[in-house]
Amino acid sequence: MSIIDAGLLSPVRAGTAAEAATSDEAWLQAMLDAEAALVRAQAALGNVPEQVARTITHWARADHFDLPELARRSRGAANPVVALVQQLTELLTAKAPEAADYVHRGSTSQDIFDTALMLVSARTLDLVLADLDGIVDSLRTLAAEHTGTLMPGRTLAMHAVPTTFGLKAAGWMVAVRTAAARLHRLRSQGLVVQLGGAAGTLAGYLAYEHLHREDREDREDREDRGEPPTEGYARRLTERFAAETGLRAPALPWHSHRTPVAALASELALVAGVLGKTAVDVQSLARTEVAELAEPAAEGRGVSSAMPQKRNPALATLIRSAALQVPAHASILTQCLLSEDERSAGAWHAEWQPLRECLRLTGGAAHTARELVAGLEVFPERMRANVDMTGGLIVSERLAAALAPALGKAAAKAAVGRAAAEAAGGGSLVSALAAQEPLDAARLADLLDPAAYTGAADELVRDALREADA
Amino acid sequence: MSIIDAGLLSPVRAGTAAEAATSDEAWLQAMLDAEAALVRAQAALGNVPEQVARTITHWARADHFDLPELARRSRGAANPVVALVQQLTELLTAKAPEAADYVHRGSTSQDIFDTALMLVSARTLDLVLADLDGIVDSLRTLAAEHTGTLMPGRTLAMHAVPTTFGLKAAGWMVAVRTAAARLHRLRSQGLVVQLGGAAGTLAGYLAYEHLHREDREDREDREDRGEPPTEGYARRLTERFAAETGLRAPALPWHSHRTPVAALASELALVAGVLGKTAVDVQSLARTEVAELAEPAAEGRGVSSAMPQKRNPALATLIRSAALQVPAHASILTQCLLSEDERSAGAWHAEWQPLRECLRLTGGAAHTARELVAGLEVFPERMRANVDMTGGLIVSERLAAALAPALGKAAAKAAVGRAAAEAAGGGSLVSALAAQEPLDAARLADLLDPAAYTGAADELVRDALREADA
Amino acid sequence: MSIIDAGLLSPVRAGTAAEAATSDEAWLQAMLDAEAALVRAQAALGNVPEQVARTITHWARADHFDLPELARRSRGAANPVVALVQQLTELLTAKAPEAADYVHRGSTSQDIFDTALMLVSARTLDLVLADLDGIVDSLRTLAAEHTGTLMPGRTLAMHAVPTTFGLKAAGWMVAVRTAAARLHRLRSQGLVVQLGGAAGTLAGYLAYEHLHREDREDREDREDRGEPPTEGYARRLTERFAAETGLRAPALPWHSHRTPVAALASELALVAGVLGKTAVDVQSLARTEVAELAEPAAEGRGVSSAMPQKRNPALATLIRSAALQVPAHASILTQCLLSEDERSAGAWHAEWQPLRECLRLTGGAAHTARELVAGLEVFPERMRANVDMTGGLIVSERLAAALAPALGKAAAKAAVGRAAAEAAGGGSLVSALAAQEPLDAARLADLLDPAAYTGAADELVRDALREADA
Amino acid sequence: MSIIDAGLLSPVRAGTAAEAATSDEAWLQAMLDAEAALVRAQAALGNVPEQVARTITHWARADHFDLPELARRSRGAANPVVALVQQLTELLTAKAPEAADYVHRGSTSQDIFDTALMLVSARTLDLVLADLDGIVDSLRTLAAEHTGTLMPGRTLAMHAVPTTFGLKAAGWMVAVRTAAARLHRLRSQGLVVQLGGAAGTLAGYLAYEHLHREDREDREDREDRGEPPTEGYARRLTERFAAETGLRAPALPWHSHRTPVAALASELALVAGVLGKTAVDVQSLARTEVAELAEPAAEGRGVSSAMPQKRNPALATLIRSAALQVPAHASILTQCLLSEDERSAGAWHAEWQPLRECLRLTGGAAHTARELVAGLEVFPERMRANVDMTGGLIVSERLAAALAPALGKAAAKAAVGRAAAEAAGGGSLVSALAAQEPLDAARLADLLDPAAYTGAADELVRDALREADA
Repeated sequence: MSIIDAGLLSPVRAGTAAEAATSDEAWLQAMLDAEAALVRAQAALGNVPEQVARTITHWARADHFDLPELARRSRGAANPVVALVQQLTELLTAKAPEAADYVHRGSTSQDIFDTALMLVSARTLDLVLADLDGIVDSLRTLAAEHTGTLMPGRTLAMHAVPTTFGLKAAGWMVAVRTAAARLHRLRSQGLVVQLGGAAGTLAGYLAYEHLHREDREDREDREDRGEPPTEGYARRLTERFAAETGLRAPALPWHSHRTPVAALASELALVAGVLGKTAVDVQSLARTEVAELAEPAAEGRGVSSAMPQKRNPALATLIRSAALQVPAHASILTQCLLSEDERSAGAWHAEWQPLRECLRLTGGAAHTARELVAGLEVFPERMRANVDMTGGLIVSERLAAALAPALGKAAAKAAVGRAAAEAAGGGSLVSALAAQEPLDAARLADLLDPAAYTGAADELVRDALREADA
Repeated sequence: MSIIDAGLLSPVRAGTAAEAATSDEAWLQAMLDAEAALVRAQAALGNVPEQVARTITHWARADHFDLPELARRSRGAANPVVALVQQLTELLTAKAPEAADYVHRGSTSQDIFDTALMLVSARTLDLVLADLDGIVDSLRTLAAEHTGTLMPGRTLAMHAVPTTFGLKAAGWMVAVRTAAARLHRLRSQGLVVQLGGAAGTLAGYLAYEHLHREDREDREDREDRGEPPTEGYARRLTERFAAETGLRAPALPWHSHRTPVAALASELALVAGVLGKTAVDVQSLARTEVAELAEPAAEGRGVSSAMPQKRNPALATLIRSAALQVPAHASILTQCLLSEDERSAGAWHAEWQPLRECLRLTGGAAHTARELVAGLEVFPERMRANVDMTGGLIVSERLAAALAPALGKAAAKAAVGRAAAEAAGGGSLVSALAAQEPLDAARLADLLDPAAYTGAADELVRDALREADA
Repeated sequence: MSIIDAGLLSPVRAGTAAEAATSDEAWLQAMLDAEAALVRAQAALGNVPEQVARTITHWARADHFDLPELARRSRGAANPVVALVQQLTELLTAKAPEAADYVHRGSTSQDIFDTALMLVSARTLDLVLADLDGIVDSLRTLAAEHTGTLMPGRTLAMHAVPTTFGLKAAGWMVAVRTAAARLHRLRSQGLVVQLGGAAGTLAGYLAYEHLHREDREDREDREDRGEPPTEGYARRLTERFAAETGLRAPALPWHSHRTPVAALASELALVAGVLGKTAVDVQSLARTEVAELAEPAAEGRGVSSAMPQKRNPALATLIRSAALQVPAHASILTQCLLSEDERSAGAWHAEWQPLRECLRLTGGAAHTARELVAGLEVFPERMRANVDMTGGLIVSERLAAALAPALGKAAAKAAVGRAAAEAAGGGSLVSALAAQEPLDAARLADLLDPAAYTGAADELVRDALREADA
Repeated sequence: MSIIDAGLLSPVRAGTAAEAATSDEAWLQAMLDAEAALVRAQAALGNVPEQVARTITHWARADHFDLPELARRSRGAANPVVALVQQLTELLTAKAPEAADYVHRGSTSQDIFDTALMLVSARTLDLVLADLDGIVDSLRTLAAEHTGTLMPGRTLAMHAVPTTFGLKAAGWMVAVRTAAARLHRLRSQGLVVQLGGAAGTLAGYLAYEHLHREDREDREDREDRGEPPTEGYARRLTERFAAETGLRAPALPWHSHRTPVAALASELALVAGVLGKTAVDVQSLARTEVAELAEPAAEGRGVSSAMPQKRNPALATLIRSAALQVPAHASILTQCLLSEDERSAGAWHAEWQPLRECLRLTGGAAHTARELVAGLEVFPERMRANVDMTGGLIVSERLAAALAPALGKAAAKAAVGRAAAEAAGGGSLVSALAAQEPLDAARLADLLDPAAYTGAADELVRDALREADA
């Protein structure tokens, strides 16, 4: 069979760990992990012999299965679990027949698939979080090293007032830290098993529990105590299933209430967005005319098939390409919250590939961003030269403030504006201003020093670093 | 001038409080509130006379301004704040000239606009949260009343296994509660002032602080102590500004790091989604052939311009119409995280209307859903009749489980499947099954009772109600 | 009542003709136009007295109606038509009672609303098309004037090879022309009336035709000829309705087949996109360090509330803000193609506001872009200076091609790459290259002339201009 | 290496021809086809020996390449072409060294990649179009067979007025035909080669043409005639390249003007939408309580892993799952029209995977829909029973029209509304109505016949069939 996807159209994740962690093979393994965890949970509650649970766990390995065949057969039931259960049952019938009948007992496709989806997500988030932590570390270093590195602040594409590269790096850092903290919380609290049976009542699981209770010695004792035969079983099974998978137990089955999935996708869109913000900033500052930053050099990095001189911001390009896609994928997931009945005929099925894209694009972007910020080249001299290139226009705001007590705020701004317009046309800001206003030359020289007009930049960086170290 | 929007194309929010709270007038007032809060904060820090702050606060009322004119003039600067500052300054020059020069000192459009956006959001979220709480109350009552109300569980459009309407209502409730709890947290922690000045360094604010310090008596004392003249001022100003607005202070200025806005939109998409889920369920159950639910009756509700007999699920329709829109709006907001430099030339500006849509569509949906669930009509007899309409097919899963010990799980499922196919063709499931398997008639009658196959439904409802009461 | 929307949050369309053409008032008028056109069509077919049709047409004017009240009452039926028909009937009962009973006969909300939607679209497209034509004119002039204006071609944010501003302008022109041509075709062929009655069979209209036929003299003659009493009436009514509105007649009623609306939105997204492409190019070239273009100056244009020196690319910013939104709105419209049954309970209702946004954002962007390109300032000297700033690196591709016959293609590229890397580090490309390869100095000087390496730029511009003039 | 994607998460396209046609292997082959076509075009214009062109064409086969390695190396340049050119050059160096230097001469990654994208699109569209034609055929048959099959028309989830299944099928058919016709036009006119060289000037190609001209005998003759040495070469090369690929030649290079790609995606979203519309209708009519349609039966089709009785509408579910995704993918493509400069640093790269998803999801949906409509089971008796289930309420509109002449239109509607409300509560519509109005019993019986109230349904079906046969 032909290779459907090796990453060729999505270089941002090609060959990354996130790509592997979200591959069909990983998903298949996660479904098998869910089936095995379910049997172990049932065993722990006395419905399945412990040895059978071990046997099923042993055979529940992706490499025993024909993945392309499973994928094709998934069209029949509109999901891959039905065919998987058949293949697993056949495998066990051949290898360990005593275990075959214990597979997927009382269960339904969605319990297995959704739990697998959460396992895949958990494993991928661990990769993403490690990369985000690495990014924060690098950005912290950059912020600390460049606290005093003067550069132009830019708004609406134009020089605004001076800032520092330290503050820019600190801004990136705080944004990534915030997104990472949110994702950490979701990782630890928001990834839940799904266990509801055919329509969310767990009736199938209870049916098997009933069968077994009839054989158990304590049945009469418990019935004598008036205890409903299966009181608490659903909760116990759910919690044990959660424990076996390492996920959390939900308040209720969520087969048709898809907030856990939609919230995960939304969170990934925020992560992709903050990484994308960093990337567009790097691109803005790497432009040939700006040249304040360059990406880390590497063999084959940023080359062109045409132009020998090129050293393109390829890493930022990859990150931005991911960040341009994730929001749309995430919107599919929030749209699919409109899941009718106890299981939607289509909205559930539309979630899977978009969620995978959210995971692997964000994972690829994080991997790529880590590399980008770890080796980012900063050119303070060029930053300073750019600050100076407009002959003081970059501190116009300050001049207007300084003139305000004498002229009034609006008139001061207008006067500086006129001078700036003249200066932009090729003259000198100082002369243009002096022609309008009697200014003390020494005072003016002080006011024109861009390094003295960075406001609270240093303080903000220090605060951000202290907070990050806390 | 003509009325651009009275709600005609968006009935879900027409005339609602959320519509008013996000109107241009509300936004204008919020910008004025931000300007006034800024002056009060500066006054508290000694840069503005207290009386001036009171005066500006007094005049900062939307009804003094020409809103359509402001809107038109917003094209010049690509945002409405520049024109607003001009109008406010002119107003004060006319009414209280001593205050005019203190308006917007050291500030920038984005500080005012973003803070206003957060004020509008806070005020709208309060409305949404009140409605969500009301929805949860009604759903709790429905869940409690209908714990034992049997109905068909439906998956992929077909009857699956029995469930209860209590469990359905509890599922809605848990979903709404979860979304509400998330939104409560965002409301209390995630709505932050923006204060950064022209490019995030607060340099403009500090410039005015410098001017004032030179006049203040303790200047020399503090300088003698080697205290940097403005140490801590940025943080103090930000915190005071936050206190004056009732919002929180951010870790850093977020002018170009738009997570607060994107996260808000994502949260609103989750809320709209869970309300939309409830709506599509109501529609599914209100269909003429199903008739298990009806919307609360009201004058003019659900009427058709053509058909006299119609009583359409109009409230659910409105809610669904909102839920179909919010995800796309929210995706614009996450897309706009790609905000280059210290202020994007377009990504910032693209946020405003989509955020308003997220707020008012979700607000309208919550308002509408509250009305829907408060008066929802439930028809238990019809639910029961629908459970019975397939002559026992709805408990096929149970029959297969019961036969599994004798036949093996797969064979049992196949046998029931064959019987079900026969029965679906018009025969009796019992006869079809009896023809295949020797079954105890009494046992079979027990097994066929759908009321005895609701699994853990009751327990799940009880748990959910207990949790909601905690 | 408060002003919900005066354009404050969407300056790109604030005060524009497209905003007015899509306002609630315009929509109300279009619904009244549809009601009146329907009566006129019915009159033409003999079901309504001609005088009544004239009377209804006379009174069908938006200013007779209470728009906010209509909007609020639209919540009852989930659309505004039911309330509108009531108000119109009441108005006529008061003013021209003989006409009251002829309003909306046989009709349904959707026929009126969808036809009104198409009327609003037609009127707005006319505005958009006029602006697009104006844009093409300006761009044609720019392309012609700057056919020989050398500038750096830029790919992945870096200088690539030389190009001309003429070719850039021609590229914009062709893109806008292509989008305009598509939109022209849609305007003339794709805007259709909706006429189907309650569920697409036109039964209501036929019921009234039946009533009237019973009174008509030729009834018996026609029945004698075996002519079915209403044969062809549906088609005739539809075509007459189309003629009265100036729209086209569809193949079938499209109440639940929403391609006309989704296709319109998709087309608008393409238009917004090509305008947005122009805008991001202008921003790229207006950056302080690049300074090859500036927006046309105007009072209040591009000013900052903080910085006196600022002349922001405000028009491009507005255009880009629109282009960042339209794709998401359009995606709602394609999503709403999933319209169940003969009328969806929500998908129809979700279309309206997003379609309006597509129309007015694109309309605002076109209006703004027309102003932008009409007055765009071009700085050829700066373009040339930027071409020269890298000391020849911009023609590296050419050098590699020139060396290829001697060295082989790959080796030539590598050699130039090494020289370029050296030169980027501060050296001279010529020296670096000469150190590697024996090159004829005169030949090298020729090769390094960027003006001689613009490929087919002139020819492409000429072809594009010729095509545009054809 | 692990299998990244075998279709497991996207059953709608798993194993389909559209999946294969858009696979990484297919894309790789298309890139090789583009490289070979370019060389052949250059050969035809005299820049490359014909034998070399044949040799390169011979070796340009995907199975000679290491796809996963190419994918991984695509991270370096942010696109796969650079690595592909290297691998192809190495292959030729080993196998046919005389050809190696002719690969990718004058070219750039984007020319190859975009042309490959168009080749992949062309090949996939051919599959989609064949399926759409098959769907139209089946729907035509259904419409013809069921012209007179009465069923309830449904709006906002409720019975509205009677319609016919023939009209429903005709509506689907017209929608699919319209979408197919649009796609046919795009297939034949809208798929274009990209040929622009490094920045759209074709300078690289011309550089090689120059080298060759210097060797050609007619050089002096042509120069004597004052003919610019490369006049028309760019156009000739582009047209020949188009001819070699079977694609069209564009007006200008479109490297940074992405309308061809965005328009393709928008068109696919329309196709997916009309198929999705059919799917949601099938689901609505297949619901257990409605049971008017069933999907074609097949081994393993529509089965559940839990419930033996289930025969889920699995095909419709798959189609709907695709239609829920394509609009968001298409919105990425329209968003990526905002492509700055001569090649965007990210917007280009974000297009690839979403376009593939548009192609293969739509392709999978078409394949699935063809199967669905070819074997759709229709149950006319159940349709008729459903029409009758409300005891005449479904013709309320007609009753109101009949009473209108006597009572006035509004009063007649109100009277029928009251009777309908009584009847809905369990009474008889006839009695309820008779209690209000003196009605002729025979006339009433006629009016209540739903088969006599299908309006122009038959005529509309006939017209649609005639049009489809034309």
